[in-house]
Amino acid sequence: MLKIGYLGPEGTFTQQAALHYLHNKQEADLNAMPNIRDTLLAVQRGDLDLAVIPFENSIEGSVNIVLDVLAWEVNLKIIDELILRISQTLMVTPGAKWQDITEVYTHPQSAGQCRLFLDTHLPQAKLYLTSSNAEGARQAQRAGRTAGAIGPEAAADKFGLQVVLRDIQDNDNNFTRFVVAGNETSRLPAARNRTSIVFSTEHKPGSLACILDIFNLWDINMTKIESRPSRGQLGRYIFFIDIDGHMSDPDVRDALTMIQRKTNFYKFLGSYPMAEID
Amino acid sequence: MLKIGYLGPEGTFTQQAALHYLHNKQEADLNAMPNIRDTLLAVQRGDLDLAVIPFENSIEGSVNIVLDVLAWEVNLKIIDELILRISQTLMVTPGAKWQDITEVYTHPQSAGQCRLFLDTHLPQAKLYLTSSNAEGARQAQRAGRTAGAIGPEAAADKFGLQVVLRDIQDNDNNFTRFVVAGNETSRLPAARNRTSIVFSTEHKPGSLACILDIFNLWDINMTKIESRPSRGQLGRYIFFIDIDGHMSDPDVRDALTMIQRKTNFYKFLGSYPMAEID
Repeated sequence: MLKIGYLGPEGTFTQQAALHYLHNKQEADLNAMPNIRDTLLAVQRGDLDLAVIPFENSIEGSVNIVLDVLAWEVNLKIIDELILRISQTLMVTPGAKWQDITEVYTHPQSAGQCRLFLDTHLPQAKLYLTSSNAEGARQAQRAGRTAGAIGPEAAADKFGLQVVLRDIQDNDNNFTRFVVAGNETSRLPAARNRTSIVFSTEHKPGSLACILDIFNLWDINMTKIESRPSRGQLGRYIFFIDIDGHMSDPDVRDALTMIQRKTNFYKFLGSYPMAEID
Repeated sequence: MLKIGYLGPEGTFTQQAALHYLHNKQEADLNAMPNIRDTLLAVQRGDLDLAVIPFENSIEGSVNIVLDVLAWEVNLKIIDELILRISQTLMVTPGAKWQDITEVYTHPQSAGQCRLFLDTHLPQAKLYLTSSNAEGARQAQRAGRTAGAIGPEAAADKFGLQVVLRDIQDNDNNFTRFVVAGNETSRLPAARNRTSIVFSTEHKPGSLACILDIFNLWDINMTKIESRPSRGQLGRYIFFIDIDGHMSDPDVRDALTMIQRKTNFYKFLGSYPMAEID
C-alpha cells in the first residue's frame, strides 16, 4: 500500500488536498507529519512514498520552507499538483459571539490571507500564531468563549467549534497549489504539463535576462518565477521557474540543456500534469 | 521633532535598526507600532514622518506584508536603507538549562532563520509563534523554567531572561535589510545609490524577459528581483526590482521611462543611498 505523508495534523487544508489526491486512486496509508521538512526527508529516506505539501497560495505567495528544502536538502521530484479553492472560516466555541473575541489563533499563512479582515473587523483581538490551523482550533477551544480560530471548516468539526463566518480571506480568489513529491522519475506526459526547475545565475549583470531569453528562443511559456536568498547571502538569489511543457518535449529538453550550460547551479524538479483549478 | 515609527514593541531587531538609523542624526520621537501595515499607513496619513521596517533577510527572504502594502496600499517612497547583522540568541529564565526546554516562543521570521537549530537541538520542543520576538520573550518569561525564547539579546534584557546560546541562526551570513519609508521625494544622490520599482508585465510569453533586456540595453545592474502574487490571482505576479543607480541618472531615468511604457502597472518606490553592510 502506498505510504503518503502530508503536513498535519488532521483538520488542515493539506489533509483536504491529500484526500482529494487519493480520490479515485489506489488505497493508501495517510500519515500526518509534524512539519514540511520532516515530510520531505521521510520520502527522501524511503520511509514514505509520497509527500503532499502546500507550494504557493494566491494571496500569501510561496511557502518558503518548501522551496528551500527542495533546492538544498532533498533530491525529490514533483510528480503531481493540485489547486484547491481555500475558504477561511472564523470559528468560536458554541454559542459565543464573534464580536466578543479578544484572541485569535491561526497559522501564519492563514493570518496572512485574512490580514484585512483582522485589521478591519477584529482590531482589538490579539493574534496568536500556531504551527497549524488544527492546532489553532485546539487552542481556541481550550481558551474558551473569548477565543476564535481561523482555518478550514474541518478543524471546527474536529475540535467542537462552530463556524460563524465563512470566506473571510482578503480576496475571493483564494487558491492554494499543493504538490505531490516523490522519488520516482517523471511519468508519461499528460495532455497539458508543467515543468519546474531551480537555478542560480552567474553573478554578473544580465545573467537572468539571458536565461529568460532562452525560453523565448524556444517559444516556451514561463508561468512562474520566484526568487529565494542563496544560502544566506543578501543580494544573491536562486530562482524557481515553472514552464509549460514536459521534459520529454524536444523543445523543453533542449532549452533546459542550454539553461544548465548557462547557470552555476541547476536542478530539475520534475515534469507533471498541470492541474485544472478545482 | 521628527516622528519615527518602527515595528515594535521595544526589544525587537527593528528597534535596533531604528536606533542605528538615528545615530548621529537629529533628535527624534521614536514610536513602537503594533504591526507593519499600521506603521506605513500612519506615515501615509501624516501622523508619523518616517517608518523603519524590515524588508528582507538573507536566510528567510522578503517580508511579504511590506511588499504588498508598498505595492497596493500606500504611496510612500523608500528614502534610506540599513543592513544589520542579525544574531539570534536562545534565552531562558535565569538558572534554567536550555537542554530542558520543552517550549520555544519566537516570531515566525526568527523561527525561519533557526529551523535547523530547532530541528537538530530541540526536536522535542513545541514551537509557539508570536507577533514579535519581544512578545516571545515575555511569554517565555511567564511560562517559566521549561520555556525558551529566540530573538535579540535586547529582548532578554527587557524581560529578565538569560542568554544561553548566541548565533543559533542556520547560517552565519544572517543579515536583515531594513528600509526607511516616508512621504518626501527622493533626496540628492549619494556616492552609490539604489532604486526600487514594482510592476506587472502584460500577460504574454516573454514579457518579463523584455523588461530585463531593457536594463541590459542601458547597462543597468539589477540587484534584486522578487515576485508576489498579483492581488490573489494564482499564476499572475507583480515584480519588485532593485537596480544600481539614482532616478536623477539619465540612464536610470530613460530605462525606467521605457519600462513604464512596457508594463501594465508600474510604481516608482524610491532612489536612496545604498547601505554598506554594517
